[in-house]
Amino acid sequence: MKYLKIPAATISRLSIYSRALEELAQGQETVVSSKRLAEICGVNPAQIRKDLAYFGQFGVRGVGYFVKELLFDIKKILGLNKQWKLAIVGCGNLGCAVVAHESFVQQGYNFVCAFDVDPMKVGLKLATGITIHHVDRLVDVCRLEGVEIGVICTPPNSAQEVADRFREVPVRGILNFAPVQLQVCDTCRVEHVDFTVKLDNLAYHLTAN
Amino acid sequence: MKYLKIPAATISRLSIYSRALEELAQGQETVVSSKRLAEICGVNPAQIRKDLAYFGQFGVRGVGYFVKELLFDIKKILGLNKQWKLAIVGCGNLGCAVVAHESFVQQGYNFVCAFDVDPMKVGLKLATGITIHHVDRLVDVCRLEGVEIGVICTPPNSAQEVADRFREVPVRGILNFAPVQLQVCDTCRVEHVDFTVKLDNLAYHLTAN
Repeated sequence: MKYLKIPAATISRLSIYSRALEELAQGQETVVSSKRLAEICGVNPAQIRKDLAYFGQFGVRGVGYFVKELLFDIKKILGLNKQWKLAIVGCGNLGCAVVAHESFVQQGYNFVCAFDVDPMKVGLKLATGITIHHVDRLVDVCRLEGVEIGVICTPPNSAQEVADRFREVPVRGILNFAPVQLQVCDTCRVEHVDFTVKLDNLAYHLTAN
Repeated sequence: MKYLKIPAATISRLSIYSRALEELAQGQETVVSSKRLAEICGVNPAQIRKDLAYFGQFGVRGVGYFVKELLFDIKKILGLNKQWKLAIVGCGNLGCAVVAHESFVQQGYNFVCAFDVDPMKVGLKLATGITIHHVDRLVDVCRLEGVEIGVICTPPNSAQEVADRFREVPVRGILNFAPVQLQVCDTCRVEHVDFTVKLDNLAYHLTAN
């Protein structure tokens, strides 16, 4: 099913709603008002209703949302009603932190292979049990494992080369932690986790205000 | 100087331009056309001109931008013409990766203290030479060191407590890596680095298209 012209911010908020609902579900809560959900998520209740309205009718007037039902629906919208297969490249502190990130597994993101250039790391296993391969084997191993999303945690000057290898697999999505803009083809989507940009935003606002 | 009503996306792009200019400057390039700068940054040239126009007149028609001059000006706009003092809380893989992030130091972000709850870590030094304190000492140490920005790399269930301690210091900005929405006072700005939201965005687009 295609949902067209949904604002990117709506998708990001759905992700935040789903995380809040996950916690409520674990806390055995069955119903949540839009007011309460909004508070947890740091948005206003009208925003939640507006975001959900893109995808249909949710909740019961005067009652609220059924927690598990809405969680199920949002996960379906986001494509989280399946397991995703991920590969990580760059097994330094950052790569290890990303692979071990607890909410990833919960959400259905499974790292099935890992790569590095460091001969001292190749052959070792990460804490989650996956073996580190040399990055030269990236295309073969990713094809074999059916990797759909590539995660780049390398230094900036290696990131484009890794993206080129992912293109060859091909993977359709890349999560890039390296502070560089990647050139990819139209069929591949890149999301960029850029610490520096966020810090620069802080610096700007602390200076300007 | 106050720059009001500048779009958040403009500030984020200025950060990306400054990084590109930094690299050009290191490569001994003195002048860059808006076309070339746009290519490196993955935007269109008109966007660069529009973003810069919020802050004055830059570049010379038919010539382009003087690399070091524009870099200097953008850094000044972003508040990067000074050294910022940062504290990190949570010295796991992620915290260590953040503190060691090479572009942070380049940009004037200096981690001056680190905190953890783990008694095995307290007293140890990070690779950059700063000592890990117990998080109970956060307020005192941050005041002593003049910390302006706090960085939270703790598990989600400790993040709010850390934010409360930062409020007591007080710090004016928080970079939050924990996947929770933090409640802070109006005088504190939070930027959120949220891996899961980015991955959910990828999943959505890979599912919807």
